[in-house]
Amino acid sequence: MASPNRIPEIRTDTVNNRWVIFSPARSRRPSDFKSKSNPSNPTSQPECPFCIGHELECAPEIFRVPAAGPDWRIRVIKNLYPALSRDLESSGELGGRPGDGRVALSGFGFHDVVIESPVHPVRLPDLDPVEIGDVFMAYKKRIEQLQCYDSIQYVQVFKNYGASAGASMSHSHSQMIALPVVPPTVSTRLDSMKEYFGQTGKLSLKTKENLQFLQAIDLGRLLKLTLRKMNVQLNSPPFNFMIQSSPLQVSPTQLPYTHWFLQIVPQLSVVGGFEMGTGCYINPIFPEDAAKLLREVSIS
Amino acid sequence: MASPNRIPEIRTDTVNNRWVIFSPARSRRPSDFKSKSNPSNPTSQPECPFCIGHELECAPEIFRVPAAGPDWRIRVIKNLYPALSRDLESSGELGGRPGDGRVALSGFGFHDVVIESPVHPVRLPDLDPVEIGDVFMAYKKRIEQLQCYDSIQYVQVFKNYGASAGASMSHSHSQMIALPVVPPTVSTRLDSMKEYFGQTGKLSLKTKENLQFLQAIDLGRLLKLTLRKMNVQLNSPPFNFMIQSSPLQVSPTQLPYTHWFLQIVPQLSVVGGFEMGTGCYINPIFPEDAAKLLREVSIS
Ligand SMILES: Nc1ncnc2c1ncn2[C@@H]1O[C@H](COP(=O)(O)OP(=O)(O)O[C@H]2O[C@H](CO)[C@@H](O)[C@H](O)[C@H]2O)[C@@H](O)[C@H]1O
Ligand SMILES: Nc1ncnc2c1ncn2[C@@H]1O[C@H](COP(=O)(O)OP(=O)(O)O[C@H]2O[C@H](CO)[C@@H](O)[C@H](O)[C@H]2O)[C@@H](O)[C@H]1O
Repeated sequence: MASPNRIPEIRTDTVNNRWVIFSPARSRRPSDFKSKSNPSNPTSQPECPFCIGHELECAPEIFRVPAAGPDWRIRVIKNLYPALSRDLESSGELGGRPGDGRVALSGFGFHDVVIESPVHPVRLPDLDPVEIGDVFMAYKKRIEQLQCYDSIQYVQVFKNYGASAGASMSHSHSQMIALPVVPPTVSTRLDSMKEYFGQTGKLSLKTKENLQFLQAIDLGRLLKLTLRKMNVQLNSPPFNFMIQSSPLQVSPTQLPYTHWFLQIVPQLSVVGGFEMGTGCYINPIFPEDAAKLLREVSIS
Repeated sequence: MASPNRIPEIRTDTVNNRWVIFSPARSRRPSDFKSKSNPSNPTSQPECPFCIGHELECAPEIFRVPAAGPDWRIRVIKNLYPALSRDLESSGELGGRPGDGRVALSGFGFHDVVIESPVHPVRLPDLDPVEIGDVFMAYKKRIEQLQCYDSIQYVQVFKNYGASAGASMSHSHSQMIALPVVPPTVSTRLDSMKEYFGQTGKLSLKTKENLQFLQAIDLGRLLKLTLRKMNVQLNSPPFNFMIQSSPLQVSPTQLPYTHWFLQIVPQLSVVGGFEMGTGCYINPIFPEDAAKLLREVSIS
């Protein structure tokens, strides 16, 4: 492969009006799944770089929970194969939307990994609500740190579970990517929520803002329950979750309709050419039926 | 599963400002891949409903090439498990963009399958350029038929090759879905090309319009070469291709910057939470390096 050491770049796709991150370093990251064809079964490897005792095999730590001592429960670390580089000078040229006329930016940004448990076989829904709440509080703390960089405009928090949902490491973790641009889906969502709010006076989403620790535990309880129901009813599918939020800088007039939410996407079908071409999804099940299905499972 | 016989519906996702098609019938379609985990190897089944001699196992034919006689080379048929239904009354309410205030439409539309060869093991790049050209001419003919329906606003032509690119049938085929709405990616692309044209006087794409038979053969030759190079250099990956075009109704002022193109997407990595959340893609290889890689392969 050509130029594996080139620094990352963010380029505008002028046809589709979106940003693409080019990051040759990413091609070298390891995978501890036997093969992409076995979606959720990691190799029976008992230990990996994300395990307690293997801290030195990882990229540097940003912080841990609890804050000091060897017995951590959560670690926020740098990604060893980052899509964006924190070392690139922010060019002053950054910010704005694709289509501004600037066709490429240097790939400045942050890419972190949140290790959710010190122990290899533990999965997120195995944690108790307080422990999941701690993971949310770790996201929050890291977002607050990233907010201090003027040129960072958006932080995407996400989790890939299972190889066919994109995961390359099986040890329970999520990721955070801080971008010097506002991604197109985020501005579209904001415009769309504004339009709906303007037309109806209603919010298309109702969520709590300002996440506090007690709310984080509530959310932890809800996420645990949802994932467990999904595992029972949908046969432990690979899944992604994303914290969908607003740009870091929002104006006071945008506040009434900007809310964050957690989106969980179980991987039950494959995206085909229709979805890629149109951006429209074909769903074989109506949302009210899917909700009923999940409501009906009883979890002991 | 609840309500498998409900008619399809197109609903607005008011958060993301996009359409979602709900189609319970889709969940019943068969798959002749042994398991989704083996991306490109169909079961060694020698015959399927798409094979010559099995026409009666298929949904009704729309037309064939050549137009009459039992020895067809291409068949355009109705999809037996359509995402949209051609039988639903067009409601008069159709058209427009998500966000118009209308939250659901009846799922009116057309969903066809283009069988590209009468014989099971033949893949698209095995055909000669003239035969591939015939496939493009079949798309064109069908689009011209669909254009006669006032309420059809966009036709998406696409191909899924290999189970991990979404294919459920291994016999060489592509699909066409005619929609009563303009999908969001299409309007975004049009806006984006307009902006680029306005700023630079240049087209972000250079393609031929009005596809004639000789051009179709040229395109067939190019597609065959590209797919064969991709197979050699990237180890026969699953892939999708999409014909990206403009809405069926374009105004004369839009003509200078509306062009269609063929997009080929080899499936080399999995879309993860970051891409789902942001709509931004992370690419481990720069486009100029990928182009070099393909340029360098020599095909005997
Ligand atoms: N020793 C170490 N120290 C620190 N970090 C280490 C490390 N070893 C590995 N890592 C990092 O750990 C991360 C694990 O992340 P995931 O398993 O969620 O998926 P990954 O980011 O590989 O790709 C998926 O998610 C991305 C983003 O959605 C998609 O682009 C991609 O196609 C999909 O496969 C990797 O990003 C890797 O770079
Ligand atoms: N006897 C018969 N007569 C007529 N038609 C028949 C038939 N038997 C099967 N079919 C149809 O043939 C089509 C084959 O299409 P593909 O293999 O390209 O993928 P499919 O549409 O299943 O789903 C992929 O593509 C869609 C659209 O991109 C995604 O929504 C989905 O997740 C992905 O798996 C199916 O749509 C099926 O309904």
